[in-house]
Amino acid sequence: MCDLLRINTDRTVMLSDGKSRFIAKGKPIHHFLGTSTFSEYTVAHIGSVAKIDPAAPLDKVCVLSCGISTGLGAAINVAKPKKGSSVAVFGLGAVGLAAAEGARISGAARIIGVDMNPSRFEQAKKFGVTEFVNPKDHDKPVQEVIAEMTDGGVDRSIECTGSIAAMISAFECVHDGWGVAVLVGVPNRDDSFKTHPMNLLNERTLKGTFFGNFKPRTDLPRLVEKYVNKELDLQLEKFITHEVSFSDINKAFDYMLKGEGLRCIIRMGA
Amino acid sequence: MCDLLRINTDRTVMLSDGKSRFIAKGKPIHHFLGTSTFSEYTVAHIGSVAKIDPAAPLDKVCVLSCGISTGLGAAINVAKPKKGSSVAVFGLGAVGLAAAEGARISGAARIIGVDMNPSRFEQAKKFGVTEFVNPKDHDKPVQEVIAEMTDGGVDRSIECTGSIAAMISAFECVHDGWGVAVLVGVPNRDDSFKTHPMNLLNERTLKGTFFGNFKPRTDLPRLVEKYVNKELDLQLEKFITHEVSFSDINKAFDYMLKGEGLRCIIRMGA
Repeated sequence: MCDLLRINTDRTVMLSDGKSRFIAKGKPIHHFLGTSTFSEYTVAHIGSVAKIDPAAPLDKVCVLSCGISTGLGAAINVAKPKKGSSVAVFGLGAVGLAAAEGARISGAARIIGVDMNPSRFEQAKKFGVTEFVNPKDHDKPVQEVIAEMTDGGVDRSIECTGSIAAMISAFECVHDGWGVAVLVGVPNRDDSFKTHPMNLLNERTLKGTFFGNFKPRTDLPRLVEKYVNKELDLQLEKFITHEVSFSDINKAFDYMLKGEGLRCIIRMGA
Repeated sequence: MCDLLRINTDRTVMLSDGKSRFIAKGKPIHHFLGTSTFSEYTVAHIGSVAKIDPAAPLDKVCVLSCGISTGLGAAINVAKPKKGSSVAVFGLGAVGLAAAEGARISGAARIIGVDMNPSRFEQAKKFGVTEFVNPKDHDKPVQEVIAEMTDGGVDRSIECTGSIAAMISAFECVHDGWGVAVLVGVPNRDDSFKTHPMNLLNERTLKGTFFGNFKPRTDLPRLVEKYVNKELDLQLEKFITHEVSFSDINKAFDYMLKGEGLRCIIRMGA
């Protein structure tokens, strides 16, 4: 993790002089997360730039941004499920589906999707999810439901909701002896992770991840290359459920606020 | 982990018929942890027996029992510190010293021992501990003291006290991005591990271990062989601080209850 450029939502200015590079109607426009890429040209710190294969289709690889890279990397780089293994994914939004996609690519045989919204189950099948658990359908904790489905627990779990309760369930649903739980979701500031330490004693591992452990400048270009060369069965187009022209940009914000679909491509200059 | 023989302090009898194999003065003597080895001959389930090199000195390798194997394995098999790396060991009893010994054997350059009893510091040097922190000497949490000593945190930490506060400190004292904390201590039944999940988000790993992840029947004979063949710079004799004859056995219990020394050899038949 980069100490210099580490994500800082409060910085909003360039590191070199503490100023922004955009002005609109006489007022400075701040730099979001050190990139401010929502423009045709921008100024960014060199450490925030990764050069990708010019042959890559930008309207597909643009989804390899924070959320989807994080979910994908959480599976591929951190959980690393073995071929034929079982994986539980908590939360079937875009990040969770990216985790499922990563588990599918890694060769997991069973991918158990956990979500309280059953309308997400049909779509999740396309991302490799084989079974579904809606915690609302059960009287017992979801970790116990999963333990029963899997003879003691899944091999890997990936938490993509940010809910502390789901994080604890994700840790407690992995198998003793070898289970690894990966926490992807961003928790609330005051949450605290509580589990009986005996769960740790039984040779389980809990791993955190940031950006799916991808090093952005070196690993993202490689991931794009593998996508372009079809070395990886990564189906990015599945994440793109909407597309609007720039003049319809407010529709895209509506989709986001309503939680409709996964990713919306906004075509600039149209 | 073995589902059949898994440690069960409440079982106390043989698996096959639910009875014990010892009788004294007409009363059954129970089997502690499935072994009951404190006798010249015993009956044990085949899964509880590991055959070691007959050339091994029994009065040395006998210390490779629960505690010392656990500490040693926590370092060698679980934390796996790289050559030149830094390791914090919480608790400088026999288990913690075994963890330090394992870290030293693995080539750690800095081994920071944490204990509230400074009388343990001198002895710990023999086990490779290079620096000491007594939490009582500081106004701030020990994880902050260690972060300052190590430019952000140690590479590995190993918790060997069983105190939940030490477990949390051990997790919070490892470096973002690659730090691994290993929990060895057995917690109280009602303890719960609380940490801000942001600590996990920063790419840290928390690992539990049982018996140092050694598989007793296969890995213990190999460890003994490496000790006999001097393939490993494992100095078991350092753990043996006392020796008594069988008739003085009550002295050994006194040492244990007073926390005097590390391990006491009891010579049978003398």
